[in-house]
Amino acid sequence: MKLLFLNGPNLNLLGRREPAIYGSISLDEINDSLRGLGKEYQVEIEFFQSNHEGVLIDVLQRTESEQKIDFIIFNPGAYGHYSYALRDAVAAISIPVIEVHLSNIYQRENFRHKSVIAEVAGGQITGFGEVSYITAFFAALYLHKTKNN
Amino acid sequence: MKLLFLNGPNLNLLGRREPAIYGSISLDEINDSLRGLGKEYQVEIEFFQSNHEGVLIDVLQRTESEQKIDFIIFNPGAYGHYSYALRDAVAAISIPVIEVHLSNIYQRENFRHKSVIAEVAGGQITGFGEVSYITAFFAALYLHKTKNN
Amino acid sequence: MKLLFLNGPNLNLLGRREPAIYGSISLDEINDSLRGLGKEYQVEIEFFQSNHEGVLIDVLQRTESEQKIDFIIFNPGAYGHYSYALRDAVAAISIPVIEVHLSNIYQRENFRHKSVIAEVAGGQITGFGEVSYITAFFAALYLHKTKNN
Amino acid sequence: MKLLFLNGPNLNLLGRREPAIYGSISLDEINDSLRGLGKEYQVEIEFFQSNHEGVLIDVLQRTESEQKIDFIIFNPGAYGHYSYALRDAVAAISIPVIEVHLSNIYQRENFRHKSVIAEVAGGQITGFGEVSYITAFFAALYLHKTKNN
Amino acid sequence: MKLLFLNGPNLNLLGRREPAIYGSISLDEINDSLRGLGKEYQVEIEFFQSNHEGVLIDVLQRTESEQKIDFIIFNPGAYGHYSYALRDAVAAISIPVIEVHLSNIYQRENFRHKSVIAEVAGGQITGFGEVSYITAFFAALYLHKTKNN
Amino acid sequence: MKLLFLNGPNLNLLGRREPAIYGSISLDEINDSLRGLGKEYQVEIEFFQSNHEGVLIDVLQRTESEQKIDFIIFNPGAYGHYSYALRDAVAAISIPVIEVHLSNIYQRENFRHKSVIAEVAGGQITGFGEVSYITAFFAALYLHKTKNN
Amino acid sequence: MKLLFLNGPNLNLLGRREPAIYGSISLDEINDSLRGLGKEYQVEIEFFQSNHEGVLIDVLQRTESEQKIDFIIFNPGAYGHYSYALRDAVAAISIPVIEVHLSNIYQRENFRHKSVIAEVAGGQITGFGEVSYITAFFAALYLHKTKNN
Amino acid sequence: MKLLFLNGPNLNLLGRREPAIYGSISLDEINDSLRGLGKEYQVEIEFFQSNHEGVLIDVLQRTESEQKIDFIIFNPGAYGHYSYALRDAVAAISIPVIEVHLSNIYQRENFRHKSVIAEVAGGQITGFGEVSYITAFFAALYLHKTKNN
Amino acid sequence: MKLLFLNGPNLNLLGRREPAIYGSISLDEINDSLRGLGKEYQVEIEFFQSNHEGVLIDVLQRTESEQKIDFIIFNPGAYGHYSYALRDAVAAISIPVIEVHLSNIYQRENFRHKSVIAEVAGGQITGFGEVSYITAFFAALYLHKTKNN
Amino acid sequence: MKLLFLNGPNLNLLGRREPAIYGSISLDEINDSLRGLGKEYQVEIEFFQSNHEGVLIDVLQRTESEQKIDFIIFNPGAYGHYSYALRDAVAAISIPVIEVHLSNIYQRENFRHKSVIAEVAGGQITGFGEVSYITAFFAALYLHKTKNN
Amino acid sequence: MKLLFLNGPNLNLLGRREPAIYGSISLDEINDSLRGLGKEYQVEIEFFQSNHEGVLIDVLQRTESEQKIDFIIFNPGAYGHYSYALRDAVAAISIPVIEVHLSNIYQRENFRHKSVIAEVAGGQITGFGEVSYITAFFAALYLHKTKNN
Amino acid sequence: MKLLFLNGPNLNLLGRREPAIYGSISLDEINDSLRGLGKEYQVEIEFFQSNHEGVLIDVLQRTESEQKIDFIIFNPGAYGHYSYALRDAVAAISIPVIEVHLSNIYQRENFRHKSVIAEVAGGQITGFGEVSYITAFFAALYLHKTKNN
Repeated sequence: MKLLFLNGPNLNLLGRREPAIYGSISLDEINDSLRGLGKEYQVEIEFFQSNHEGVLIDVLQRTESEQKIDFIIFNPGAYGHYSYALRDAVAAISIPVIEVHLSNIYQRENFRHKSVIAEVAGGQITGFGEVSYITAFFAALYLHKTKNN
Repeated sequence: MKLLFLNGPNLNLLGRREPAIYGSISLDEINDSLRGLGKEYQVEIEFFQSNHEGVLIDVLQRTESEQKIDFIIFNPGAYGHYSYALRDAVAAISIPVIEVHLSNIYQRENFRHKSVIAEVAGGQITGFGEVSYITAFFAALYLHKTKNN
Repeated sequence: MKLLFLNGPNLNLLGRREPAIYGSISLDEINDSLRGLGKEYQVEIEFFQSNHEGVLIDVLQRTESEQKIDFIIFNPGAYGHYSYALRDAVAAISIPVIEVHLSNIYQRENFRHKSVIAEVAGGQITGFGEVSYITAFFAALYLHKTKNN
Repeated sequence: MKLLFLNGPNLNLLGRREPAIYGSISLDEINDSLRGLGKEYQVEIEFFQSNHEGVLIDVLQRTESEQKIDFIIFNPGAYGHYSYALRDAVAAISIPVIEVHLSNIYQRENFRHKSVIAEVAGGQITGFGEVSYITAFFAALYLHKTKNN
Repeated sequence: MKLLFLNGPNLNLLGRREPAIYGSISLDEINDSLRGLGKEYQVEIEFFQSNHEGVLIDVLQRTESEQKIDFIIFNPGAYGHYSYALRDAVAAISIPVIEVHLSNIYQRENFRHKSVIAEVAGGQITGFGEVSYITAFFAALYLHKTKNN
Repeated sequence: MKLLFLNGPNLNLLGRREPAIYGSISLDEINDSLRGLGKEYQVEIEFFQSNHEGVLIDVLQRTESEQKIDFIIFNPGAYGHYSYALRDAVAAISIPVIEVHLSNIYQRENFRHKSVIAEVAGGQITGFGEVSYITAFFAALYLHKTKNN
Repeated sequence: MKLLFLNGPNLNLLGRREPAIYGSISLDEINDSLRGLGKEYQVEIEFFQSNHEGVLIDVLQRTESEQKIDFIIFNPGAYGHYSYALRDAVAAISIPVIEVHLSNIYQRENFRHKSVIAEVAGGQITGFGEVSYITAFFAALYLHKTKNN
Repeated sequence: MKLLFLNGPNLNLLGRREPAIYGSISLDEINDSLRGLGKEYQVEIEFFQSNHEGVLIDVLQRTESEQKIDFIIFNPGAYGHYSYALRDAVAAISIPVIEVHLSNIYQRENFRHKSVIAEVAGGQITGFGEVSYITAFFAALYLHKTKNN
Repeated sequence: MKLLFLNGPNLNLLGRREPAIYGSISLDEINDSLRGLGKEYQVEIEFFQSNHEGVLIDVLQRTESEQKIDFIIFNPGAYGHYSYALRDAVAAISIPVIEVHLSNIYQRENFRHKSVIAEVAGGQITGFGEVSYITAFFAALYLHKTKNN
Repeated sequence: MKLLFLNGPNLNLLGRREPAIYGSISLDEINDSLRGLGKEYQVEIEFFQSNHEGVLIDVLQRTESEQKIDFIIFNPGAYGHYSYALRDAVAAISIPVIEVHLSNIYQRENFRHKSVIAEVAGGQITGFGEVSYITAFFAALYLHKTKNN
Repeated sequence: MKLLFLNGPNLNLLGRREPAIYGSISLDEINDSLRGLGKEYQVEIEFFQSNHEGVLIDVLQRTESEQKIDFIIFNPGAYGHYSYALRDAVAAISIPVIEVHLSNIYQRENFRHKSVIAEVAGGQITGFGEVSYITAFFAALYLHKTKNN
Repeated sequence: MKLLFLNGPNLNLLGRREPAIYGSISLDEINDSLRGLGKEYQVEIEFFQSNHEGVLIDVLQRTESEQKIDFIIFNPGAYGHYSYALRDAVAAISIPVIEVHLSNIYQRENFRHKSVIAEVAGGQITGFGEVSYITAFFAALYLHKTKNN
């Protein structure tokens, strides 16, 4: 199994940005933990981050055309709340997308209560800090198992 | 570590109720899988289901007063969309609550897009069918690890 | 044919409660008329009333599992305006449910204009006072005839 | 007792129009069944259908001035969702009006969830297909009995 | 000066219809008073009433093409609250239209608080019962004087 | 008969203020016309203008306690759109109040479409420029006649 | 191929009505251009205009029952914004309907931003003045070609 | 005089639950103070608390049928914001109900700004912490005096 | 302890104004009762009423700068529903403000359901007629006791 | 005459993406048809597609500064529903823009019912699949003819 | 050049009122800084503050009639959020008005997000504390320069 | 002190784009004035403009990591109305951001009334044309002085 962890705008600032909300662990440190998990459970992992909506759409399309990834674990950042173009890209591809958020978006500003990605994603995990990504890893692992049974 | 899987109204019908939405696995079968996981990862597990809002509040209060459970994994069913009394019970207790839903509530009727539990829960997992419970198991496991590091 | 007349909260007060709105006939007197009709048209009839949302859900589930009733004629009372848990129970069972209201709910307070049961019920009859139940009896009778033709 | 079954726009297409929603029985076949019921229960019955809002208002006014009809059973079709002029006509007359719909309007498009006729009608019956008219027949029959007791 | 008093749906029922709201004077009696005023102030007066939206549009268009009328005093009845087709007809003609209502529409049901005619009419008079028409007569008289000064 | 013409905020600027909307005639010139009408029809007239909400309330209360005025013709200016205190004063007194506006408030900014005074006033006249006041004069005259018949 | 150009209320006034919005060409002149196009591309064309909602419904129903028309190009005028009865007629027939508007309805008053016909029409063309009809002609021509390939 | 202090869900947790909002005094301590007041002013007092909506309805109905209580002082907890079934029970009984809340519900989350009980209760007291109950005691005392004068 | 009873617009009309809503007791009679209570419980009392928003703000500011009053019991009348300037004055001072209303504002017009004062007041008492003021007296008395314990 | 066909995000996936909605023809095949039409009617045609909002703005600005294009036929994809930056670019340039959509956006999700481009575009064509582009070609052709007459 | 700094309700409390929001500098201290700036840049400055809406309207009208002031720098306080009477006064005068707020009104309560003055003011400066007034001083200075170039 | 003037989409068109709204001065001419001011007051100034949301986020992040700029004066153009990604970037950095707009956004289309940047910016200046930038320069200058005092 192979996973792509795709991160949207401002997630490259993790650890430095509003740590009361997003925690003090950097994206690199999170990715290291995920790499560790990958080894433990024999799952290949790729990472990509961009602040550009168009680049994120391009990556989703390219991932689809290459067909090497089993699940995309996608933290769309703030784009998740309004980017219908990203939403259409997620809807257009056949690879299942698991949406994750570090913070519990339902306990923050009103505009964060709505995810336009959730309407087309396979599922959503929100509010566990860096454990959100880990949890998504296991969601993918067990969805894969279930499908292959 | 000890977990309580708490299920709300109509979840006792799983497997028989609208299988296109909720899948064909019964709650007992899901609980069996979770018991298996518990053994594998040395986690004690309890289960409770009720159709009664008041009973669910009583259980949350009793769990708090007994202080034997580390995480409550709670599928509030339809009560999750309007029961502010349940919300207040979740807010009143110190044991962290992980909200789960089988279906992706953001792809269904409007009334299901809003969870009043999410506003006070530790996090939310939605849309992975029976894997939602398994995913919540790992969320609890790793939150526990993180806290104890 | 066998019918269950299921009545929700405060309907046990009929005849004493706000008679300008709900009329001066008691629930027992209504049930007597219905029993009379049942005899006339050879229809078995059962009655149940509860103020408890959870009990009403339990009754709907039990009726489904026993499979002895052809139609449930259900006056959900005020629960009909917000109990998505009851709605899910109605949706989960295969026995057709006919929703009735004594008063014309569309001529009263705003909150009564919306029935969450109507979204899943087979049909709705509202505004005829005690004749609402009688009308529902005939709806069931002729739906049964139509189906069996 | 004498009844007028009044039908609004597009109901002349019954049987041919979107049969998945409206059934495959024509308005003439429904009227035949109602005529049969009329004979069985000694009730005189008249029928009228028009696609014209103004004509429907004229008919309601004429029925009032002639005072030969005891109940008007009115399927306003789509006019029921916005024609305040029809609503005012129903409110202006003393003959009780029973509103009927073939489909369960609360399970269809949003605009059908609101009936401006319901706000002034004696009651509403919705969702039983052609049995809606039959049910309305019995509603009228028993309201008449009740009034004359 | 020549005036057309144009009356919409159900206004032919005046005196008989909901007298608590609309008063007990008939449309003919109101028109007689207006004819009297016309003689007193040397103003020609015409009257027209219809329950048909299309007929009212036709009359507005014909009045425009004949160019014999100085002011149209228009009580659109309930059409005033939703008939954008009538609104467009009023907007399309050059003859000034004075909107009148017998009752104070701002003290009644919500749907009557909005007049789509008011958005294109020269002015609006509401709430004086039959005196609304008389008041509109004087509005036309003095607007005519002002314009011709 | 005796009338009070009561004018609210900024109406003292008439003729100088946004003449495209409010016309080029000053409040004094309007009042002169009304005085002329008063003489012609033997009606006593008083005038009052204030920019102060509290003063307008005081005047309404004093007029009530003196009981010398038959009708108050009230242009509340912008206070008409939000001053519930003025609304309560109008509701509290027994002298009938006729609300007037120079411009057609339904063709301007959204906030002007709502008059909180209209909900308690006897009637409303809007959109005829200075003729609005003259029209109100005749409304009062004929309402007085009607009442005294 | 045979087309029906169906025009709703006030479109008979084209050229005379608010020319800044609707242009200075009359409906007859537009129809002449369309007749010319019809000859050039060998398409039969019929025209119908009415201010009456009921007549437009009747025409749609008759066109369906006669089955001689391939496409109806329909400018519903203001009825397009609220006539659910017309909407139901369009939905009830099998002949594809192309909705056209002369003005860009999305740049005008709020009530014109919503077309209830669009929800059931095959497509919509708006904002090109008389070229809207010509454009619809070509839409029909090429949809016909595509279908017959 | 005899009072029933009726408390809804989670109020049994007072003193332990979110003390920053609800204070650190337990429900038993509050009830002790009230018993003291009762002795001082010769008022009999009863107490009841439940987390179950249906039980609260049963208690309201039983209190009505026994007719031994003069006022019910009711803190509905979170049920007060959505339980129309409780609302109907309050409306159905003749014993006056005084609604109390410990916190100022108008300074908290949006969902707490609306009380469905307030629409049928005799009055509402909110925001004084445990003094809310004491204040309600005096409201009952003086309403009783006033009525008996 | 010293209290200021501050009354807003139109409350000087009590006893004469809409007695069905506000009762038939005058403000002077209410104040006499409160003076009596003051003597009984050794509480100094001051009274002030004004129809002027600005004067009420001035009084609140002056009371703060003089620091002689322990609680302000404030019936803001209709200003309570929209005067954010009064709200800011209440928020700006350190003396606690208890908001009172004679009528149950939650059972009247929609605009009365919202109090902008409640968002910053210490608490709110509504619906007990003249007993509202008396109840507020005891709220102040016991809050004072609690604070001084 | 020279046209630019400008396509926004995910339109490069045409033929592969949700074919039930968008059809099975690729963008290249559509462009080939358009090239064919261009030859037939002697119209030069250019094509551009991007998933990047900023790139689309840059292209619109460059097209304006080069002034070689007569009409831009723009399918903004999902950006059309929220990109006010694209809207401002369309408004800022003098070259007329014709908005096209393949699907009937008024029959899909709510967010697609609103086009922020339509508010500034010359006109809109929606719902004809690949024929939408062809129809836009003819709209441009005849608008060009009309302008040059 | 001459400026009027006009301050609305509760701004006389600056320095004492909610210093966390409004800072600890008094209005007099702010005015001293502005006087200093005035001397440095040769600008005459006047100051006025009132808690009375009517007085503020009177001052705006008097300033207009005297024509000695080039810019009014206006902090309307809470009146800015609802006083359409003040708005109309600002709109009625020809002297440009610069709206200032100390706090960033877009980061506070919802009601402060809307300024009815902004809709007619020349511009708005918000969020810089006492520097808001200084910034407005320079806005006026450079607008004056620009106009006189 | 060092300032960055950051400009968003379409601001490179200033002087050519809708000059009635945005004025006829180009961005280069504005920047020249600002450079002049910079020299006069010894403030270093940098400029950047982009039409790309992602590029603007990158620039904000880079400015933060370089820590050479004291204030960012940011005109987000239309992105300011919906780009929550830009908002999060502004919130994530510690350098204060002053939002400016050339036009008074509160007097234009509804979508411009809301700035998502204002919710996290230090303050906002809007409506003074090119003087908005100059005013922001002085806001930064005096905020810097105030902080350093």
